[in-house]
Amino acid sequence: MAKELKELTKRSENYSQWYQDLVIKAELAENSAVRGCMVIKPYGYAIWEKMQRVLDDMFKETGHVNAYFPLLIPKSFLSKEAQHVEGFAKECAVVTHYRLKNDPDGAGVVVDPAAKLEEELIIRPTSETIIWNTYRNWIQSYRDLPILVNQWANVMRWEMRTRLFLRTAEFLWQEGHTAHATREEAEVETRQMQGVYANFAEKYMAMPVIKGLKSENERFAGAEDTYTIEAMMQDGKALQAGTSHFLGQNFGKAFDVTFIDQNGKQEYAWATSWGVSTRLVGALIMCHSDDNGLVLPPLLAPIQVVIVPIYRNEEQLNQIREKVNGIVANLKKLGVSVKFDDADNKKPGWKFAEYELKGVPVRLAMGGRDLENNTIEVMRRDKLEKETISCDGIEEYVKNLLEDIQQNIYQKAYDFRESHMVSVETYEEFKERIEEGVFILAHWDGTPETEERIKNETKATIRCIPLEGDKTPGKCMVTGCPSAQRVVFARAY
Amino acid sequence: MAKELKELTKRSENYSQWYQDLVIKAELAENSAVRGCMVIKPYGYAIWEKMQRVLDDMFKETGHVNAYFPLLIPKSFLSKEAQHVEGFAKECAVVTHYRLKNDPDGAGVVVDPAAKLEEELIIRPTSETIIWNTYRNWIQSYRDLPILVNQWANVMRWEMRTRLFLRTAEFLWQEGHTAHATREEAEVETRQMQGVYANFAEKYMAMPVIKGLKSENERFAGAEDTYTIEAMMQDGKALQAGTSHFLGQNFGKAFDVTFIDQNGKQEYAWATSWGVSTRLVGALIMCHSDDNGLVLPPLLAPIQVVIVPIYRNEEQLNQIREKVNGIVANLKKLGVSVKFDDADNKKPGWKFAEYELKGVPVRLAMGGRDLENNTIEVMRRDKLEKETISCDGIEEYVKNLLEDIQQNIYQKAYDFRESHMVSVETYEEFKERIEEGVFILAHWDGTPETEERIKNETKATIRCIPLEGDKTPGKCMVTGCPSAQRVVFARAY
Repeated sequence: MAKELKELTKRSENYSQWYQDLVIKAELAENSAVRGCMVIKPYGYAIWEKMQRVLDDMFKETGHVNAYFPLLIPKSFLSKEAQHVEGFAKECAVVTHYRLKNDPDGAGVVVDPAAKLEEELIIRPTSETIIWNTYRNWIQSYRDLPILVNQWANVMRWEMRTRLFLRTAEFLWQEGHTAHATREEAEVETRQMQGVYANFAEKYMAMPVIKGLKSENERFAGAEDTYTIEAMMQDGKALQAGTSHFLGQNFGKAFDVTFIDQNGKQEYAWATSWGVSTRLVGALIMCHSDDNGLVLPPLLAPIQVVIVPIYRNEEQLNQIREKVNGIVANLKKLGVSVKFDDADNKKPGWKFAEYELKGVPVRLAMGGRDLENNTIEVMRRDKLEKETISCDGIEEYVKNLLEDIQQNIYQKAYDFRESHMVSVETYEEFKERIEEGVFILAHWDGTPETEERIKNETKATIRCIPLEGDKTPGKCMVTGCPSAQRVVFARAY
Repeated sequence: MAKELKELTKRSENYSQWYQDLVIKAELAENSAVRGCMVIKPYGYAIWEKMQRVLDDMFKETGHVNAYFPLLIPKSFLSKEAQHVEGFAKECAVVTHYRLKNDPDGAGVVVDPAAKLEEELIIRPTSETIIWNTYRNWIQSYRDLPILVNQWANVMRWEMRTRLFLRTAEFLWQEGHTAHATREEAEVETRQMQGVYANFAEKYMAMPVIKGLKSENERFAGAEDTYTIEAMMQDGKALQAGTSHFLGQNFGKAFDVTFIDQNGKQEYAWATSWGVSTRLVGALIMCHSDDNGLVLPPLLAPIQVVIVPIYRNEEQLNQIREKVNGIVANLKKLGVSVKFDDADNKKPGWKFAEYELKGVPVRLAMGGRDLENNTIEVMRRDKLEKETISCDGIEEYVKNLLEDIQQNIYQKAYDFRESHMVSVETYEEFKERIEEGVFILAHWDGTPETEERIKNETKATIRCIPLEGDKTPGKCMVTGCPSAQRVVFARAY
């Protein structure tokens, strides 16, 4: 096993350090010279690209088109929606000048005080304001609706404590912004996109999620309802993986976006917005990976299969190469991405450790004896199980194996979550069990005050009011007041 | 013909206004509330997405991978490369603060003076500095080289005069940044990427380009050589469509990026960078479109074929729909993107004008008589020629027609350029002919002073020193000094 692999902290020792080590050692991302901003390295970016491609297809299948809006937002726009400004106008990057000049005192450049902007510009923390300011000119009649637009972009929030992928000052995301003629249509859109996200998380990321509504405290600033998908990480903490907001007419009113409806009446347009970000890469890592490195779901792995030759001399390598070339070609025909690593400056053992660390789902290895026997060694990354099988039909075998791995890691994550989800009846029990790293289903009286108290006393928040499952009413574990249904509490990323 | 179509200014009247009208009316882009920043509307963005997909595949085929680097650059980084700072550190957006607070005097928010950054941050105008600062830690040995990285990103240059797509403060682009162990390898890379761009322009954009080297005056700030592809617009002006820079060891030295070579000697890494931007969308529009609207090459058209039904009643529409559904399915099987526009709130004439304006390469129309005769009307956008043909084999016919259109618009642009390219021997002749809107091949003594004089007196610049074609030496048309070969002069966007 390679030296650097040994250096990966174990999850049981320090989960947070394990994550940090893994992101660095698997070459996914690193911190940059700019505080809180990361460099996404090629291997990490390749995962994000795979996610983008799948999501983009899903958005288009549901009728959306892409567009692009400015990076910078006039400061005054942020103040137009009362809730929104509270949530987003505080920690953000402010552009105040548009020119540098040579430092009169010596080397370097300084800000030119003569080039001060009349109104400061903010680097977008999210784009509702600039987009709804634009929609005002796009929308006159109900015939102009719905507008179903998505944007792939970078955004910036001046976070104090950052962690690679999970919380960074700059991050990449998509933000959908739709406008509708009726409340009903906007609500259907909001739920539809939550469904798209849940489907993506479960089918592609192999990450089970709970679909729910956010409580008032956790709602998006400016939304009437925030729909969320919540996932459990291996330390039992929750990660909000995607949100879809029903914005009502808040932005329509703030930016005066009206239309003439079918009855000739003037109405404000109804809005939704929804987004997922590079945070999903962090979720993917934390959900499945182990003490040996990444475990990637085949559907999002940049390389699905790696083939390593084990040879004594050039002649044997050539024999292996000849045999492997056919397998590579057949795998590609089946739509499997495959890499034949015949680099001669690394030993097979080093390569094995490297691809384990990088989470390549299937590793094939072929040596001299395999050549004689027409066999090949197959290792599946999720279970770290090896077997030697015949080369005949190996391609179909590998393709099925990839599907099995995808299914297995989903099931493993699902079983983990089910075994870390408990119902409690009293606040005493709640305080005990939350320390175990679990999701807790408990009754809550629906007030922000009670939620705030629980948060202050236990660091747990309401992750969501689940849309599915048990809806039996009860009594709040803290106040004893009536509760409509159990909600999900957890500590969260 | 629809009202708004008539309002498109004719090219012959005012080419610049025609372009502006077309970008707005074809719903490609519009100006935003932020000075110099555009909103790229869905139809314009769809063209950019097509370009991105093709280019990204080409980059990957030539061994490159994508990554992502921070949006913001510490001010001091810009000063590290002496040439670079002169070119890029002047007109740029400067972030000085990271927080807003409620205005103590009343409504709205103001910049919090307590949240002043110690060092100002610049929104990237290009990323050489932040990337080479990162590469320092990635590169130790020749084994770490080459690094072949590309980034898709937004950048910002505080331009005073902006035009949609052609010159905007914020624009979208890709920037490749590679590091190599030898000068030769870096030079090969630089030329390879110029070749990729030329291939993309000619094969996909159907836009002929001249490959050449920039003169010193026009070189990228920090480059030893800038390779360019130059295209002619319909007004005879030049548009720089893509550049690839050989940066020598300038950034290696500025950011102290060294490696141990195969002989154990420490060396500075060699660099290239290369980019194309949303400017290409502007080039595409200006190269092919006409007084009726956009003309798009089929390989980059968001919709390649539109089918419009012409019907008297619902029953007839259903008959047409049944027939058309089969054609649509067959076209899709052939990889052709097709839209059946059966919207009932627009008349066929309105739709015809609309798709002409939008540059859809092929329009099919089917009416009652076509149903009877098993025929369909075919209109090709490039020549505006109509014919009625049998529905049998229509799919193959359309596929071939799309290829023919792609070829035809390339040829048309090529012939236009050839007929607007002249050789001149004297500066007097030069001054006369440059007024005609042509590219001029002329001898030049190779000095920045002579180039500067020509620019000041005629507004023409050296677009490039062509790599191909006539290399006969001569005498500078201005000074009579020796000239190695003719160079291309033009007025430029």
